[in-house]
Amino acid sequence: MEIKVLHQVMDWNEDVSEQVKKELADHQVCMINIMGSPGAGKTSLIVSLIEQLRTKWRIGVIEGDITGQIDAERIAALNIPAIQLNTDGACHIEAMSIQNLLPHLPLDDLDVIFVENIGNLVCPAEFKIGESMRITILSVPEGDDKVEKYPLMFTETNCLVLNKYDMLPYFDFDEDRVRCHYETFCPGAPYFPVSCRTKDGLEHLCEYLSEQISAAIRQ
Amino acid sequence: MEIKVLHQVMDWNEDVSEQVKKELADHQVCMINIMGSPGAGKTSLIVSLIEQLRTKWRIGVIEGDITGQIDAERIAALNIPAIQLNTDGACHIEAMSIQNLLPHLPLDDLDVIFVENIGNLVCPAEFKIGESMRITILSVPEGDDKVEKYPLMFTETNCLVLNKYDMLPYFDFDEDRVRCHYETFCPGAPYFPVSCRTKDGLEHLCEYLSEQISAAIRQ
Repeated sequence: MEIKVLHQVMDWNEDVSEQVKKELADHQVCMINIMGSPGAGKTSLIVSLIEQLRTKWRIGVIEGDITGQIDAERIAALNIPAIQLNTDGACHIEAMSIQNLLPHLPLDDLDVIFVENIGNLVCPAEFKIGESMRITILSVPEGDDKVEKYPLMFTETNCLVLNKYDMLPYFDFDEDRVRCHYETFCPGAPYFPVSCRTKDGLEHLCEYLSEQISAAIRQ
Repeated sequence: MEIKVLHQVMDWNEDVSEQVKKELADHQVCMINIMGSPGAGKTSLIVSLIEQLRTKWRIGVIEGDITGQIDAERIAALNIPAIQLNTDGACHIEAMSIQNLLPHLPLDDLDVIFVENIGNLVCPAEFKIGESMRITILSVPEGDDKVEKYPLMFTETNCLVLNKYDMLPYFDFDEDRVRCHYETFCPGAPYFPVSCRTKDGLEHLCEYLSEQISAAIRQ
């Protein structure tokens, strides 16, 4: 169970996050933390990114879930190194869990690790996990008021992906409302409307990610 | 920020939950805790329930949100007593927050209080808040794997509402998968497919809720 606590724990997580970051840098690996609500399409996005980026980058995946291994099996079926991280009830991933997992990934044979965080628009944003960058994914059916209502998730991020964009005609969704509030929280940060089903919009996102991965592993 | 902690805090929350429950029973008020992901349709469900139940029951609403008062304003516009509860970053409502709010509601003039919990399919399920019953709401666009992946939310509940049921033709959603896993977690518990947009299915849910409210306030 969960409760508000002390700065010490946050500091400890930050320390471990920095250690993870350093270890990944030593191996020239870029880790990307993907966060969003249950059902926003995090796994579908990772599958789509693998399809489009695997010819250019060597990809690994860490699948965070409270329980089960449905998602890791889906990724492993693509012949991509995938590890399932079960939090056993916890609502977010912490840096220590990532640190414990790293020895099980072939870091010298990877350029990028996608981490699928727990489906949760609140807590994951509070915990750094050693990532080079963060993607927040929102989906059209969730509604256009989510940026305002869950501000931290749309502030502590590097880019916003609006998924299920092909569903726009079926929902009362004001895209400008989302963009306007996101621009307030993250001025100038990139925004990508995509559909992981139709694959529309993914090209722009993949171009952007390739630039970010290049920059991260060159550092 | 959040972290795993001690039984003491859980026990303390349970104690306060019992106190809230007793206070509500003294006033013959039934409190219903509504939980689900961001965008599942919790506010829309409450609006629909108000429309259908207000001639029979005197209704009040507590709107839980991390920040802002968008939802409480929407409810207050219906001329229903509504209080916005901001958790200032916390990902769930605790019993103490409800206890602090009760003096601000006209308990002697209410039969039922709907509490909209924070949009989160994980943490709210762990915290009793003095409620007589719980509704978990899932929506079709979230996907048919959510019951398995977030088991506590579908175990610690009294009924499951599947919202946005009118969207079924547009999504690859296996309803039997949801029902089957839910039946495993909550044998015999009621399940209501509804659309808060078209209003389909709400009648059955409202009949059930009326029975539950009657039973709760007669105790």
